[in-house]
Amino acid sequence: MAAMRYLNAKLAQQIDEELMSAAGAFSLDQLMELAGLACAQTLATVYNKEKYPRVLVCCGPGNQGGDGLVAARHLGMFGYKPTIWMPKPGSKEIYKRLQQQCTNMKIQTLEPSQDTQSLRTALASSDVILDAIFGFSFKPPVRAPFDAALPLIAQSGLPIVSVDVPSGWNVDLGKVDDLALNPDVLVSLTAPKEGVRQFKGRHFLGGRFVPKTLEEKFQLNLPEYPGISQIVELPRADGSADSQKL
Amino acid sequence: MAAMRYLNAKLAQQIDEELMSAAGAFSLDQLMELAGLACAQTLATVYNKEKYPRVLVCCGPGNQGGDGLVAARHLGMFGYKPTIWMPKPGSKEIYKRLQQQCTNMKIQTLEPSQDTQSLRTALASSDVILDAIFGFSFKPPVRAPFDAALPLIAQSGLPIVSVDVPSGWNVDLGKVDDLALNPDVLVSLTAPKEGVRQFKGRHFLGGRFVPKTLEEKFQLNLPEYPGISQIVELPRADGSADSQKL
Repeated sequence: MAAMRYLNAKLAQQIDEELMSAAGAFSLDQLMELAGLACAQTLATVYNKEKYPRVLVCCGPGNQGGDGLVAARHLGMFGYKPTIWMPKPGSKEIYKRLQQQCTNMKIQTLEPSQDTQSLRTALASSDVILDAIFGFSFKPPVRAPFDAALPLIAQSGLPIVSVDVPSGWNVDLGKVDDLALNPDVLVSLTAPKEGVRQFKGRHFLGGRFVPKTLEEKFQLNLPEYPGISQIVELPRADGSADSQKL
Repeated sequence: MAAMRYLNAKLAQQIDEELMSAAGAFSLDQLMELAGLACAQTLATVYNKEKYPRVLVCCGPGNQGGDGLVAARHLGMFGYKPTIWMPKPGSKEIYKRLQQQCTNMKIQTLEPSQDTQSLRTALASSDVILDAIFGFSFKPPVRAPFDAALPLIAQSGLPIVSVDVPSGWNVDLGKVDDLALNPDVLVSLTAPKEGVRQFKGRHFLGGRFVPKTLEEKFQLNLPEYPGISQIVELPRADGSADSQKL
C-alpha cells in the first residue's frame, strides 16, 4: 500500500476549503465537532482521568482554538476537570457558542489577560495540557501573549498533547523555533503535516470525515481506523514496533 | 441514585429547543452529528460489518432523517455498505448537505418514489435496517408512503435498529398502532421517551451532549457513559442482568 501523504501548509488549506465548499458540503460546526472529539479521545486514551483529571486546554485565536473548546467540552463529558485558557478569543460567532457550551458544562474559562499570571496559576494546578494554540495556518513569528506563554508551558514539565501541529513549529519545516513546544503526544487532523514527520512521541490521526472522493483526489492514503473509533494511532517515526497501538 | 427520567413528547421538544436556544448554544449541525454518530456506533456494536455489511438506512422527512444521513456517512467510514432510502427528503438546507456528504462517500441514495418498488428491491439485498423514519415529533397516523413501507420493512425479517422511537410507535403511549415496527435494538437520544419503557430489545442511549446544567434542571438522572464512548447500554426492561453490556 502507498505511503500516507504528509501535507504542506498550502495543501492542508486547500483540503480544508474543499471540505467546506459546496462540493464537500461540510459545515465548520460539523468538522470542528469531530476534530475536537478526536482530540479529547486522544488525550483520554493516553492520560487517564484518575491520574490526570485536571486538563488545561490552551486555545489560540483561530479555528484550532475552536477545536480546543470542543475538546474541552467532551473531556468534561468524559469526567475530566478541564480549564480553558483562551487569551485572545477569535471574533467568529462560533467561538462564543462553543464557549457557552463549556460554561453550561461548568468548565471554567480563565479571564482573558495579556499578562501571564493566570496561566502560571493554572499550570500549577493542572495535570496535563491540551495545546490547541496554533494549527496549520500558523505563520511565524509567535506573537504576544503566546511568545511569553509557550516557555511557561514548556517549563511546567506537564505532559503535553498537541493538536495537528505542535505550537511554535513551522507547518512545513518542523521544530525550527526556540519557542516551539515539545509535546509528548500529537493528534494530526485530516492528514499529518510535513513539519511533523520527525515527531518522536505517540502520534494519532483524527478527523474521520475525509470522504473517499477527496482521499482519492489528493492521494492521501490514509490508514484504516479501527472499529468505531474516531482516532487511529500511527507507527512511531523511529520505526519502532507500534506496541502501544490502540 | 434517582431513576433515569423518561420524557414525554412535550418535554422532549422543550429540551431540544433549549439545547439550541441562545442559552444552550448548540447548532443543529452539532447535535445531528453527535446523534448520528451514536446511531452508527450502536448499529456497529450489535451488528458487525463482516456478517451485516449492507445497511439500509431508512430516513423520514424530519430531523430524524438527518440523524439517519449522518449515521449512514459514519457507517460508510466504519466500512459498512449503506444505502439510503429517503422517499420524502425534508426541505431544510441541511438535508441536502448531509446527502451530498454521503454521495462523496459513494453511498447510494435510492430515487425518491411514491411506490415501494425500490424499497422492496433494497430490502432484498440488505442485511440490517437502520430505522430513522419517525422520531419524538411523530404524530399519528402514519402517512404515505410510510404506511406502505412499514409493513414491508417488518415483513423483510431483517434485524432493525430504531432511532429514538421505533417508527409507528406513539411517543407517549408506545406500541399501539398495528403498523408499528418491532425493532431488535433501540438507540434513545438525549434521554429515553415515555413510549419505550416497555421496549424489550437491547436498548442504548446516545447524545452525550446534554450539559450538566440542563441535566439538573430537568432532573434527567442520565446513566454514566463508559470511557470515551458516545453510547451506553441500558439495562433491559424485563430486569434481566445486563450481561451484554458494552
